[in-house]
Amino acid sequence: MMLNRTRLSALGLLFSCVMLSFSACAWARHYEFNMSIDEMTIQVAPNLKYKVFAFDGQVPGPLIHVRQGDDVTVHVTNNTTLPHTIHWHGFYQTDNWREDGVPGITQPGPGIKPGTSYTYHWVAEKPGTMWYHCHVNANEHTGIRGMWGPIVVDPKHPTALEKKTTMNAIMMLSSWESAAANKYGTGGGPNDKRNYFSINARSFPLDQPLRVKHGDFVRVRFIGVGNSIHAMHSHGHDMLVAFKDGLPIKNPYYVDTQLVIPGSHNDVFIKMTNHAGRFIFHDHIDYQSTNNGKFPGGAVTVIEYAGTPKDDWYGWRNIKYNPDFFYSESLKKGYGKFDQPFFRGQPLERRHHHRHHRKAN
Amino acid sequence: MMLNRTRLSALGLLFSCVMLSFSACAWARHYEFNMSIDEMTIQVAPNLKYKVFAFDGQVPGPLIHVRQGDDVTVHVTNNTTLPHTIHWHGFYQTDNWREDGVPGITQPGPGIKPGTSYTYHWVAEKPGTMWYHCHVNANEHTGIRGMWGPIVVDPKHPTALEKKTTMNAIMMLSSWESAAANKYGTGGGPNDKRNYFSINARSFPLDQPLRVKHGDFVRVRFIGVGNSIHAMHSHGHDMLVAFKDGLPIKNPYYVDTQLVIPGSHNDVFIKMTNHAGRFIFHDHIDYQSTNNGKFPGGAVTVIEYAGTPKDDWYGWRNIKYNPDFFYSESLKKGYGKFDQPFFRGQPLERRHHHRHHRKAN
Amino acid sequence: MMLNRTRLSALGLLFSCVMLSFSACAWARHYEFNMSIDEMTIQVAPNLKYKVFAFDGQVPGPLIHVRQGDDVTVHVTNNTTLPHTIHWHGFYQTDNWREDGVPGITQPGPGIKPGTSYTYHWVAEKPGTMWYHCHVNANEHTGIRGMWGPIVVDPKHPTALEKKTTMNAIMMLSSWESAAANKYGTGGGPNDKRNYFSINARSFPLDQPLRVKHGDFVRVRFIGVGNSIHAMHSHGHDMLVAFKDGLPIKNPYYVDTQLVIPGSHNDVFIKMTNHAGRFIFHDHIDYQSTNNGKFPGGAVTVIEYAGTPKDDWYGWRNIKYNPDFFYSESLKKGYGKFDQPFFRGQPLERRHHHRHHRKAN
Repeated sequence: MMLNRTRLSALGLLFSCVMLSFSACAWARHYEFNMSIDEMTIQVAPNLKYKVFAFDGQVPGPLIHVRQGDDVTVHVTNNTTLPHTIHWHGFYQTDNWREDGVPGITQPGPGIKPGTSYTYHWVAEKPGTMWYHCHVNANEHTGIRGMWGPIVVDPKHPTALEKKTTMNAIMMLSSWESAAANKYGTGGGPNDKRNYFSINARSFPLDQPLRVKHGDFVRVRFIGVGNSIHAMHSHGHDMLVAFKDGLPIKNPYYVDTQLVIPGSHNDVFIKMTNHAGRFIFHDHIDYQSTNNGKFPGGAVTVIEYAGTPKDDWYGWRNIKYNPDFFYSESLKKGYGKFDQPFFRGQPLERRHHHRHHRKAN
Repeated sequence: MMLNRTRLSALGLLFSCVMLSFSACAWARHYEFNMSIDEMTIQVAPNLKYKVFAFDGQVPGPLIHVRQGDDVTVHVTNNTTLPHTIHWHGFYQTDNWREDGVPGITQPGPGIKPGTSYTYHWVAEKPGTMWYHCHVNANEHTGIRGMWGPIVVDPKHPTALEKKTTMNAIMMLSSWESAAANKYGTGGGPNDKRNYFSINARSFPLDQPLRVKHGDFVRVRFIGVGNSIHAMHSHGHDMLVAFKDGLPIKNPYYVDTQLVIPGSHNDVFIKMTNHAGRFIFHDHIDYQSTNNGKFPGGAVTVIEYAGTPKDDWYGWRNIKYNPDFFYSESLKKGYGKFDQPFFRGQPLERRHHHRHHRKAN
Repeated sequence: MMLNRTRLSALGLLFSCVMLSFSACAWARHYEFNMSIDEMTIQVAPNLKYKVFAFDGQVPGPLIHVRQGDDVTVHVTNNTTLPHTIHWHGFYQTDNWREDGVPGITQPGPGIKPGTSYTYHWVAEKPGTMWYHCHVNANEHTGIRGMWGPIVVDPKHPTALEKKTTMNAIMMLSSWESAAANKYGTGGGPNDKRNYFSINARSFPLDQPLRVKHGDFVRVRFIGVGNSIHAMHSHGHDMLVAFKDGLPIKNPYYVDTQLVIPGSHNDVFIKMTNHAGRFIFHDHIDYQSTNNGKFPGGAVTVIEYAGTPKDDWYGWRNIKYNPDFFYSESLKKGYGKFDQPFFRGQPLERRHHHRHHRKAN
């Protein structure tokens, strides 16, 4: 069985970065993707390795970027040892409810069984920042096991704010439980201890700065993907709250601390009014800006302006910079599904496999 | 003493479904209700029986439905072993502050003593979705012991959205602590473990589906009645947030995940745009969509369209349907107080009474 | 070293109530303040003494009240045993990022060392309700150790609502951990138990009523300064939500339960429409209206109308009233920095100092 899974996984990965079908029509286009789900380990925080169920082997999952009205087919292959589904969060599924990805309600439970494949087909009716996630044991699989990724649907009629955007940054916020890190099928309960916190599945300082220049107009797409509530505070800058769960609101308003609740996908715009500087951007539920109580950590990044001196005492002065950590580069690449090596996990260690094997005997 | 309480309770129930006084004037009408508070056990979740203080013997309490400007007299009889009050949440109590129901502040502490009665009189100045609850040891009595019920006050001047409504659904969200289930006077503290979650005091699958048909325009009246924060996510449908704490807002906006905080009573409207289907509607704080960690459970329901096939694998395919679970039927019945047999608890077991009796001796 | 710290502290206190420099220009004025940070004990709740780091020896810290465009210099002297900084929450720091007060990012870590001083200089670019707090180990120092105070920046162009205001009330909401009360350097972690709650660092009944008269138009400036989320419910009155994080919103809306998240600083307006009465104003996350589970307590106050009878059974009937508890009096005193004796803590007990001394030997 191990061999079979390994083979399936390799096959899935082979296809998963390829957009198989692309046929144009008046507006809508058709996309067809392969996506695997793999058992991997990611390094969430300096002291926290974590077993995840990883879409295409990565956490967060790959970006899906399409246009409003496009239709999308996704072939999912479950290479893991537990069942899963994919829910396409926020979409209307008009006359298409069986593709909603909820086990026992829209498709037979327990979902996509280990070693099997399943195909979803849906239309990007609703524009904006959307996302996908597992709906089997969502409190664990989505809550603390990394089963989520972003979808960006470009609207037919962009708003004035959208047209002025110079940069996009997707920030998926979640929490983790170190007690459940090593064992699938545990954690995510109402009284389990959420003690690590992250942006795009990496806790400070393992995440990345948000590099900007004076005059940039950055659209931050917040998605609450985990089990915790967050209060993101942007030092030195107001955030113009302009989109709620994908759709524009009539009267955008400014905040400097933005609530991000699980399930929400709200967009804010930040005008980069400074000329230089480093501005911390962090969860103001301050214990969530720690790694298990050690500050700073958790859901913390830094807005770094071009031209800022690299002080000796600045921890990220020599960071190996990844300009795609917030999907900013992927979002420039046109339409399709975009995997990211940076987010890719490590396959489970051999020792672990042996242990399982012994158990099976 | 047991007999006396039993007799009082029977008396209370006799009167409690009767609107005693009804005299019309230009607009305002006068209503007079009897309401009892009884010690009961309800089945919150499959594995969770819970001792509650139950208005008219039920949790949630009976609906009070009146018009803006009506005045209301409520005779409350406390058949339980602990003191209580009733606070009429959201009302202005203009020149009427002694009827606000807060022990030690608007009426003498400790409130309405066991075996005694008390009368409240108030005017429905403010329209909209309102509620009532106990204000004695509110963290326990209201937080985890079921002492709450809905009030709907029809406005003198309904908005356009209200006029288009085809169906009403009241969803009171709360949490429970299994450790406190069997013992009055315990639980509800800041570090007590909230591990069950519910809509109208029943955790999935003991609650009910929301049955609709294509074209329905459903007003969902969310009330945060317990100690937890909720993030209700409607699959397949946006919710138009249009009323906050009873009053209309100028610019309604769409969400698919709606924050419900304790004390809030906000209304959203959902256009049923599908033709068939089952759409899960659940708390996206995913551990709150579990029963003590088991998913799915907790604050979960399903929007069921008329005409959807009943798949073999759908758990609620043979459910005994109660169209009034969300008070949709009660709200069609005109004005008054409306008890519901479905929400009625079981009187405490005899064994328990004996134990109490022994203690008293 | 003890002697030195004592001397420095005395010096700091000598200067800290004095506005050293005041020079007018067209609009902007220059203010120069001394501020100390001292180790003190405050009585948070009847059973809870707490070791805090106190700005000018008090918790909350002194009010800073200036006008939009003013520039401010603050000389900070750290008389405590641990490093600190001050972050000026909400300000833009345009071309001034090194004054943002974040250790390791805008100034060298670990911040202002024990026994040393540091000077911040910033311009009040953004008007409204703002605040300051420590950014070293913020989860402890700000979260549970009292290192926060309010800033009010009067706008160049006040809105109509602001002009109608008859009274201001600042309510800083936070939570406390009794387990960490006696030991600096502990607490504030994601799983530490927050079991006390407060408005302006005092839990009911150690806080104060909000005394008003019919017709008052009160601006309540909520600031979320601790680690918890709050849901403030005003009995008998709607709150007009009109300012978010300092700035006015286009369409204010009414609520009776207002969410206050950590880091936020939102203003509401309350019209005092009653003629007499006592209306409880409390956190509707009901366990936060307790002192470690005992109700009422925590984040609870009472709106007291002038002319209300003092009932025998009202707990606060003989309270020694402090009209400045919500900074209402300080805000009438013009511009500058305003210390408040009421908020001043007690210096740490001698026994404690001896113990430290023994350790040092």
